[in-house]
Amino acid sequence: MIKVGIVGYGNLGKACEKIAVESEEFDLIGIFTRREPSFINSPYNSLVYRQNEIFDKDIDVVILCVGSANELQDTAFDIAPYFNTVDTYDNHRGMKDYVTRLDQIAKSSGKLCFVGMGWDPGIFSLMRALLSGIGCKGYETFWGKGVSQGHSNAIKNIEGVENAIEYTIPRLSALDCVKRGDFTKLKDTDKHIRECFVVLKDDVDKNRVKKEIITMPSYFLGYETIVHFIDKKEFDRNHKGCGHGGKVVSVGKVNGHRTECEFSLAIDSNPHFTASIAMAYARANYIMSREGHNGAKTIIDLPISYLLSQGREDNISQYI
Amino acid sequence: MIKVGIVGYGNLGKACEKIAVESEEFDLIGIFTRREPSFINSPYNSLVYRQNEIFDKDIDVVILCVGSANELQDTAFDIAPYFNTVDTYDNHRGMKDYVTRLDQIAKSSGKLCFVGMGWDPGIFSLMRALLSGIGCKGYETFWGKGVSQGHSNAIKNIEGVENAIEYTIPRLSALDCVKRGDFTKLKDTDKHIRECFVVLKDDVDKNRVKKEIITMPSYFLGYETIVHFIDKKEFDRNHKGCGHGGKVVSVGKVNGHRTECEFSLAIDSNPHFTASIAMAYARANYIMSREGHNGAKTIIDLPISYLLSQGREDNISQYI
Repeated sequence: MIKVGIVGYGNLGKACEKIAVESEEFDLIGIFTRREPSFINSPYNSLVYRQNEIFDKDIDVVILCVGSANELQDTAFDIAPYFNTVDTYDNHRGMKDYVTRLDQIAKSSGKLCFVGMGWDPGIFSLMRALLSGIGCKGYETFWGKGVSQGHSNAIKNIEGVENAIEYTIPRLSALDCVKRGDFTKLKDTDKHIRECFVVLKDDVDKNRVKKEIITMPSYFLGYETIVHFIDKKEFDRNHKGCGHGGKVVSVGKVNGHRTECEFSLAIDSNPHFTASIAMAYARANYIMSREGHNGAKTIIDLPISYLLSQGREDNISQYI
Repeated sequence: MIKVGIVGYGNLGKACEKIAVESEEFDLIGIFTRREPSFINSPYNSLVYRQNEIFDKDIDVVILCVGSANELQDTAFDIAPYFNTVDTYDNHRGMKDYVTRLDQIAKSSGKLCFVGMGWDPGIFSLMRALLSGIGCKGYETFWGKGVSQGHSNAIKNIEGVENAIEYTIPRLSALDCVKRGDFTKLKDTDKHIRECFVVLKDDVDKNRVKKEIITMPSYFLGYETIVHFIDKKEFDRNHKGCGHGGKVVSVGKVNGHRTECEFSLAIDSNPHFTASIAMAYARANYIMSREGHNGAKTIIDLPISYLLSQGREDNISQYI
């Protein structure tokens, strides 16, 4: 059994816990959190520790489930000197510097750290690299329909907003554009619609809040943004899902001939699907680490065969 | 530049030649054929040799473009003691034994041999393994709409048939079945329609030929098979394309939540797309071979990063 620890106990940590407990491959050593352990209720009665208690434990792979925005990088830098790690770091822009620094740390300690093992970054990254690598000239990524936590939080931070959720929706006109092989004219803001559902506090001016949303740089400015004001009851009834999805599409000439490739995904639960990917790569990490691999790796550095639990001949018969 | 040789000069060999000649990465040392070289006309004036002349040449990677049905395995066994190889071997059932034997030969000679580097086997194999590896419980592969060379040839072998082509077409009802997550009831014969266009010789009995087609075991028996008899002129006008496509679909619960993944492909030219994949893996073969890797490998054994020509940091920025 693979001894795993989970750092962070939000939606992702809980979804990883479910896999670790229900699978016979994993032995969950504990959940490690910055919160007061006695306040945490695990549905599986998993052992819960303070985060700094992890360093005394015997763990093969640590799954890092803290937020990418603030905590994840520093947590990884603290843990990689002592343990192999798998994370679902999701900040595309910070990726290069994070991998580079973590690679140095993990190479010094002889540990193996997998970065960005979710669906984007993750499976979608693999698709972009694969399609490009086999000669598809252009590709585009569309996200949605699904909730963007970052955009939802940006609205929640506006004064007078009690609750808010943002759905990112691919624009069909942009998708058509890509399917005609017409990539050059597409700007980022052309590709998605941003639909927002907002609950206001009492006596707040709708027009002021709407204006603050649609003019917010990077997040909404330039996008087709639709704002609905709804009451708390409707919000709780209709906007508690965590479904998501998206697609990587490539259309163009390959060796002189039209070729259309598409990988698409629709998921009812973003954290549970992400956790399934992370835990699959935790198993791969365990095997590769025992083979002597170390350093920080992204999904394109790893052969898919390490995800499979059968022997080589059975894998060939079943999948090739 | 990577010195490549091409063995076999059918549609696939010609499509590989186009890439080798047009790309600055490759130096095409020659085309090697069992036919009389002076009879062969290369549009690029490539050097053409008899197949056994290959053993005197200095070649980094040999691309094997002879037919999988008869020649490919023996050609690979002859060449692997002396050269690295890439092939697009496409017989799913023969795959395990072929890889096992080629692995022994290539390990003895220290050469690196890539097997099945097309789209199925190839990219679709990678998708099946990936989806299964990350926790998607069931998946199905659909082919088409596209021409099956094997089925077309089976019809051509019937007495009285002058020419024939078979299109494999996914059944929408089966696809719907998969999208409902209902895999268990699907038989192979439920998944595809086989539509055949047949040109008869003079005075041949249509009913006899039709009966021979639809009752042919493994190829047509049990399938919904549609047979059209057409004249030579219509055949030449409408049935000379070599487009193809297909999809790998997975629908089911992952970690308790509905998840739908699909990789789909539509290509105007089967040989040109296959060649683009094979040549991308020829570049990967060259790099991995110089790093000291040897033996026979399938697509799931190889990290995608080897397909990319930029440095690691640029790959992370662009794809992850």
